Amino acid sequence: MARTLYELSGKNDRRFSPYCWRARFALAHKNLPADLVPVAFGEKEKIAFSGQQLVPILVEDGTTVSDSWKIACYLEERHPKAPSLFGGSVGQAEALFINHWCDRTAHPPLVQAIIFDVFKNVRPEDQPYFRETREKRLGKSFEALHAEREAHLANFRKALDPARTVVATQPYLGGAAPAYADFILAGTLQWARLACPQDVLAGDDPLRGWRDRVFALYDGLARNVPAAA
Amino acid sequence: MARTLYELSGKNDRRFSPYCWRARFALAHKNLPADLVPVAFGEKEKIAFSGQQLVPILVEDGTTVSDSWKIACYLEERHPKAPSLFGGSVGQAEALFINHWCDRTAHPPLVQAIIFDVFKNVRPEDQPYFRETREKRLGKSFEALHAEREAHLANFRKALDPARTVVATQPYLGGAAPAYADFILAGTLQWARLACPQDVLAGDDPLRGWRDRVFALYDGLARNVPAAA
Repeated sequence: MARTLYELSGKNDRRFSPYCWRARFALAHKNLPADLVPVAFGEKEKIAFSGQQLVPILVEDGTTVSDSWKIACYLEERHPKAPSLFGGSVGQAEALFINHWCDRTAHPPLVQAIIFDVFKNVRPEDQPYFRETREKRLGKSFEALHAEREAHLANFRKALDPARTVVATQPYLGGAAPAYADFILAGTLQWARLACPQDVLAGDDPLRGWRDRVFALYDGLARNVPAAA
Repeated sequence: MARTLYELSGKNDRRFSPYCWRARFALAHKNLPADLVPVAFGEKEKIAFSGQQLVPILVEDGTTVSDSWKIACYLEERHPKAPSLFGGSVGQAEALFINHWCDRTAHPPLVQAIIFDVFKNVRPEDQPYFRETREKRLGKSFEALHAEREAHLANFRKALDPARTVVATQPYLGGAAPAYADFILAGTLQWARLACPQDVLAGDDPLRGWRDRVFALYDGLARNVPAAA
C-alpha cells in the first residue's frame, strides 16, 4: 500500500511542525510506514494537488487527507485492526476536545514564547514571508515577543495544568497506554524542542517524565531527532 | 439495592454544587435511582461517617465513595452493563483530563464571577463560615470580586473555547451521545444557573444549544430545577 506524508521542512530540512508530528506519531502507533516528503514554506507548488496550502497531508492509495485531526480520524477508520488512536467513539470525541484545548489554550502563549526561535529554523529564503505573515498575525515583532519570553513561557506552563494533573495519576493522557491525546501535546513539545535551545518545561515539571515516555515510544521516534542546539 | 447520594444544600434547600450535579447526572445516565440527602455547610456531622468533610458522597450497599470523579469511576466499574459514562479506558482517561481542565481552567474565573451570588444562596447560619473561608482562599472580599464581575465572566467565557469549538461539530462533548465529559461542564453551568440570576453564557454563545440538550436529558433532570430569580 503506497502511503506518503507531506510535512513541513525548515532550514537544514528541520521538521518541527507540531501538526506534522501528530500525524507521524499516529502513523507509528498504527504501525503504518509512510514515505516522508519535505515541504518548505516556499514550496506550495509541491502540495497544490491537495487543493489547499497546509501540511500535514497524507496520501494513501490515491486518497488525499489534509489536516492532522482529519488524518487521525481517517487512519482510525481505514485501519480499524491496527492499534487504536482513540479507543472508541467517546475517546475520539474527547480527543477532539484535547486537540482544541491544545491549539487554543496551550499554543497561543507558546507561539509567542518561541516564534523567534522557530523563525531562525526557517529556510533563509522563506524568512521574509514567515516574518511578515506571523508578525501581522501576532501584532508584535519577533524581537518584542522574544523580550517578553519568560512571561509567555509562564503562561504556557500554567496552561498545561490539566495535563500535569492527569499524569500525576496515570502514565499517559490516554491512560495506562499511549493514545492520540498524548500525541497532540507531544507534538507541541517536540515542536519546541526542535526549534528552541531552552527547555520550555521547568526543571521540576512532572510533565517531563511523561514527555520522556512519549518521546521514547516507537523506537525513540521523537527522541532520536536531535534537539535544537 | 440501597443507594444514597449526599449532596450540598443551601438556603431553602437549594442544591447548587457543581460536583454534586456531576454525580446526579452520572446516576441518571446509568438509570440508578438514589435517595438524595441534603447536607448544609454546618451539618458536617451528617457525613462524619465518610471520614472526610466534602460532598458528594455515594453510599451503595454499605460501600462509601466520596469525590465526584471517584463516584463516576466507581459507578462505571460496579455497573458495567448500565449505559457507559466513558466508553472504555481511553475515554475514561481523557475524561479525567476534561475534569481537571474544568476544575483548573474554567472554575477559577467563574468562582470569582459568581461567588457573591453563591454566598446569597447559602443558609444564613452558614454564611459567616462561607465568607471567611472563601474570602481567605480568594484573597478578596465578595463585594470586590462582584465589582469585577464582567472581567471574570469574560475570562470564564474565554476558558470555554475548547468546549465551544467541539460542539460546533458534534452534539455532545462525548460525541453523538452524552457522556461523563458533558456532565462535568454541565454541572458547572447548572451551579451558575442555580446561584446566579444572570446567564453566565453570552446570548450568542453556541454552548447554549449544547447546554439545552444536556439539561433536557433524563426527563429534564437539570432543567426542571428552577433557575435563580
